[in-house]
Amino acid sequence: MNSSPKVPIPTLERLATYLRYLIDLEASEVETISSTDVEKQTGINAAQFRKDLSYFGEFGKPGVGYNVVELQTRIAHILKIDQTQPIIVIGAGNLGSALIGYPGLQEHKFQMAAAFDADPAKIGRPQGQLTIQGVNDLRQVNARIGARIAILCVPASAAQAVAEAAIAAGIRVILNFAPILLQVPSRIVVRNVSFLQELAVLSYHLSNETHK
Amino acid sequence: MNSSPKVPIPTLERLATYLRYLIDLEASEVETISSTDVEKQTGINAAQFRKDLSYFGEFGKPGVGYNVVELQTRIAHILKIDQTQPIIVIGAGNLGSALIGYPGLQEHKFQMAAAFDADPAKIGRPQGQLTIQGVNDLRQVNARIGARIAILCVPASAAQAVAEAAIAAGIRVILNFAPILLQVPSRIVVRNVSFLQELAVLSYHLSNETHK
Repeated sequence: MNSSPKVPIPTLERLATYLRYLIDLEASEVETISSTDVEKQTGINAAQFRKDLSYFGEFGKPGVGYNVVELQTRIAHILKIDQTQPIIVIGAGNLGSALIGYPGLQEHKFQMAAAFDADPAKIGRPQGQLTIQGVNDLRQVNARIGARIAILCVPASAAQAVAEAAIAAGIRVILNFAPILLQVPSRIVVRNVSFLQELAVLSYHLSNETHK
Repeated sequence: MNSSPKVPIPTLERLATYLRYLIDLEASEVETISSTDVEKQTGINAAQFRKDLSYFGEFGKPGVGYNVVELQTRIAHILKIDQTQPIIVIGAGNLGSALIGYPGLQEHKFQMAAAFDADPAKIGRPQGQLTIQGVNDLRQVNARIGARIAILCVPASAAQAVAEAAIAAGIRVILNFAPILLQVPSRIVVRNVSFLQELAVLSYHLSNETHK
């Protein structure tokens, strides 16, 4: 049931938002919440919250609400982040380096297992707890690690070739930071993070304002 | 018309994706495209593409298709990225540094105008073409720059206070990389970029696969 492919992507995105909120609540020692609390804090309306959860069974108790720890555990289980998973980063520039050292990864049990770069000057260098490896060794290294998640932080010009190499090395899902639309087989899932696109959407919202 | 508040956010997000594709096409000297080409390259279906454009008037010619340069220009205009806009970065760690030096910003006419940090050891240091300034000087500096877009790359624990300072300094839209849900007045628009949430959504997609 948890792995039903019918769950819409926006529901999954919202689940990750609820999880963020629940983690913060647990840190604040809040024990129980209502769907109205969720709406107030996340901006996602209470009915949507209940509908999102309804894909995955029964949650919460009428008149009592949702237990913070239990809901957090169940959402983490739904998103399959309740067990340690290796991930790899390809591209060890500023952005890649920021991700390699990102302290929040453990919160979702992601284990940064390897970092790769094409630049001979970078290969062999320490980066956080890792040593940067050559992107040509991707397949060989991942045969040992078994990561299925890769983060691409390479320039746009390199991204398609690197994605293909990653897929050949056993990667199944890709978080792509390169400003390019990757062409991948349908069994591969890609999510794109584009600062430019995010900024463009924000820019649009300025257009309703009076200019200074 | 361009500034109609009724345009759904997902349409704006897709417009930014079309724009990415059109910029790449122009670089490849492609002159005209069909909505089927768009579907093939972006994964967004042709009917959705036509519907998204329909919010903004007439586009393309029946039997001929869409002129790449014209469509690009019009989408940039809709998203208000056809004129130079100053943006600021708050938090000059690895991620902030990656953004400050990000060569693609000019593509959408964003001008990186100032970078701020709270760390006295960083203040006064050069970062790309900028000098890192103290976050306490935000209001004073932005009175001169007039940026309305800020990128927040600060730790979660600092993000809410920094967002409030940015808003007080005239910022109207925020791209937030801190893993926290910011509480802001309703006139302020925030977009959150969370590596963890993106990875969590990707992780879900692995759950339909056989484990190794």
